[in-house]
Amino acid sequence: MKWIESHPQTEGKPRTGSLHTEAGIVETPNFMPVGTRGSVRGLSSDVLSRAGTEILLVNLFHLWLRPGERILKGAGGIRPFMGWKGPVLSDSGGFQILSLKERRKVSEEGVHFQSPYDGSSVFLSPEEVVRFSEEIGVTIAMVLDHLVSPEEGTGKNREALERTLRWAKRSLDARESVEGEMALFGIVQGGLDPELRQFCARELSGMTGLSGTIFDGYGIGGLGIGETPEERVSLVAAAIEPLPRNKPRYLMGVGYPEDLIQAVGEGVDLFDCVLPTRNARNGMLFTRSGRLIIRNAKYGEDFGPIDETCSCQTCQSYSRAYLHHLFRTGEMLGPVLNTIHNVTFYLSLMKEMREQLVMGTFSRWKNHMLTHMNSRGNNE
Amino acid sequence: MKWIESHPQTEGKPRTGSLHTEAGIVETPNFMPVGTRGSVRGLSSDVLSRAGTEILLVNLFHLWLRPGERILKGAGGIRPFMGWKGPVLSDSGGFQILSLKERRKVSEEGVHFQSPYDGSSVFLSPEEVVRFSEEIGVTIAMVLDHLVSPEEGTGKNREALERTLRWAKRSLDARESVEGEMALFGIVQGGLDPELRQFCARELSGMTGLSGTIFDGYGIGGLGIGETPEERVSLVAAAIEPLPRNKPRYLMGVGYPEDLIQAVGEGVDLFDCVLPTRNARNGMLFTRSGRLIIRNAKYGEDFGPIDETCSCQTCQSYSRAYLHHLFRTGEMLGPVLNTIHNVTFYLSLMKEMREQLVMGTFSRWKNHMLTHMNSRGNNE
Ligand SMILES: [Zn+2]
Ligand SMILES: [Zn+2]
Repeated sequence: MKWIESHPQTEGKPRTGSLHTEAGIVETPNFMPVGTRGSVRGLSSDVLSRAGTEILLVNLFHLWLRPGERILKGAGGIRPFMGWKGPVLSDSGGFQILSLKERRKVSEEGVHFQSPYDGSSVFLSPEEVVRFSEEIGVTIAMVLDHLVSPEEGTGKNREALERTLRWAKRSLDARESVEGEMALFGIVQGGLDPELRQFCARELSGMTGLSGTIFDGYGIGGLGIGETPEERVSLVAAAIEPLPRNKPRYLMGVGYPEDLIQAVGEGVDLFDCVLPTRNARNGMLFTRSGRLIIRNAKYGEDFGPIDETCSCQTCQSYSRAYLHHLFRTGEMLGPVLNTIHNVTFYLSLMKEMREQLVMGTFSRWKNHMLTHMNSRGNNE
Repeated sequence: MKWIESHPQTEGKPRTGSLHTEAGIVETPNFMPVGTRGSVRGLSSDVLSRAGTEILLVNLFHLWLRPGERILKGAGGIRPFMGWKGPVLSDSGGFQILSLKERRKVSEEGVHFQSPYDGSSVFLSPEEVVRFSEEIGVTIAMVLDHLVSPEEGTGKNREALERTLRWAKRSLDARESVEGEMALFGIVQGGLDPELRQFCARELSGMTGLSGTIFDGYGIGGLGIGETPEERVSLVAAAIEPLPRNKPRYLMGVGYPEDLIQAVGEGVDLFDCVLPTRNARNGMLFTRSGRLIIRNAKYGEDFGPIDETCSCQTCQSYSRAYLHHLFRTGEMLGPVLNTIHNVTFYLSLMKEMREQLVMGTFSRWKNHMLTHMNSRGNNE
């Protein structure tokens, strides 16, 4: 895998580029719709492509439990299984160490999980994550990291960070022992401490496997779970500063459109987030002027599209009044059409950022957008 | 509206034709996916078109309650509201007289319903159904009929039938007083008594409005609610026999693929049924050899498509194993992909029947299909 910077920027940190993977090219900056269990909320791969999707995210931990390795290998890998021809990035299970806190035990060797499906015991190690990702044909694998809540305090966070670094090294070693072209990303942790973030990023940047290979890119993890948007921007900046310019950076699990715009300003290349898909189910739609809650009575007789400027299938064929009706009657088409819009909105926003970057007008555009957009708050 | 018989048949009762409506042409025999509340379970109109849909069914009673006349008119009618360019047939609410038995009171004037949404009182009369259908831009409206369960006995059924006929006459009169091109179908009732069916069909065939207009087609109602498939065939035959050959016949709410094949053999032109959409949600899929229950463990490692001969988006891109996985993990994409398949399966079956009819091989094909298909029973 190779990331090639294009149109070298005059504006400093932000950049455009293309990620050349064995499964296709991804223009960056870009956004990955979330298909945790191997599907993106009601959208077929065909609909995802038409929404502009170039790369999907799946979760290794969930796929390991269901459908499991034998079936994924039987299908020829996760991509044929999902009917998705483009590249796939797999999150490792590090977030589940945090979210399934009652159901896991972390040791130096790895993590023992209790399956949320049937209570059976499963063991994930850095080596196992690399092996499994490669076996099921993932394009880019994230290493297994040890994520703890910032609230656990400096001691625990420092400890987790050091373990994350030891696991990162073991992951690099493991990758050298498997066949294939799979790319591997390290993950910068360090909680809310910019210095810890820088330390971690520096360590990962200089890290090599037994045969001297390095990471193909870097995730920035553990954000979007409590810090303010302002804290987030400086933590992202701190994490990026020591990273090599010629490798892609991926801000994990973040965030609202404004967060993406700000993070691109700091030099982030890749994103994923459940917001566009999860909120679509609840009728929360993103627009250029902020969010729109489709259940609100005023949309019942509003015959315009969700967003006048949106070219998605939903905005081309359906009105706010129709989506309001689908929400009120509980029709499944509602979440489907809402998801098409939200995913398209995120992907169009990324495309617009790439264009603004190429034109050298990103920074002015960014300020304009941040002034006029209000997605985080409720402007209803 | 005009139905024109094509390729006059050498095989007697079954026939092919084309229904020329103000919203487009429908080749017959054909099947209408059910969009009761203005949407077909998770399928956008684009997906419906690609599945081969030529005409949709909606339910006037449900649309009257939600979103209601003002909004439907504001949207420019039910078709723009749904984003559907083709013709739309509206069921009147007659079935709701039966299914919402506790919530309605029938008088000679019409039916008082209690809204299942908010308990408010609503009144449907034959005239109101015609007026409302026309106002919201329905292509083909079914008259309001009085449907009672066959179990209610001969007296009640006879009484309901006579009311149905008086209401049919009032509907014809009402249609003459509204502007526009909307087609109106009468409905043959008569429960499980072939002679009552024939009587009703004869009455409707000769019925004219004040200015001499007649029905544009005929529904056959009150079936698919308890009779055996054999009883159904002879009741359909009895109902059709007195109907004019040059008008389309629509068998309402029926049924399994075998039922459709048999009914086409008796000269039915149009169908609707919730089976393909409702069963898709529960993972029941139709195939040429019968039904397939996707949750069954054996499909977990079956990497073939649902049906080798199906050209739907689902069968082209996804395996039984993937659909099984979606079912087990409760992913919304499961019902969506299942519905695409089932709807395509029904529509392809209709297309195949049209082709067999044109070739003059329908009767042999029908016998072959009825011998080899087992959709009604459980062949798992
Ligand atoms: Zn849109
Ligand atoms: Zn299919």
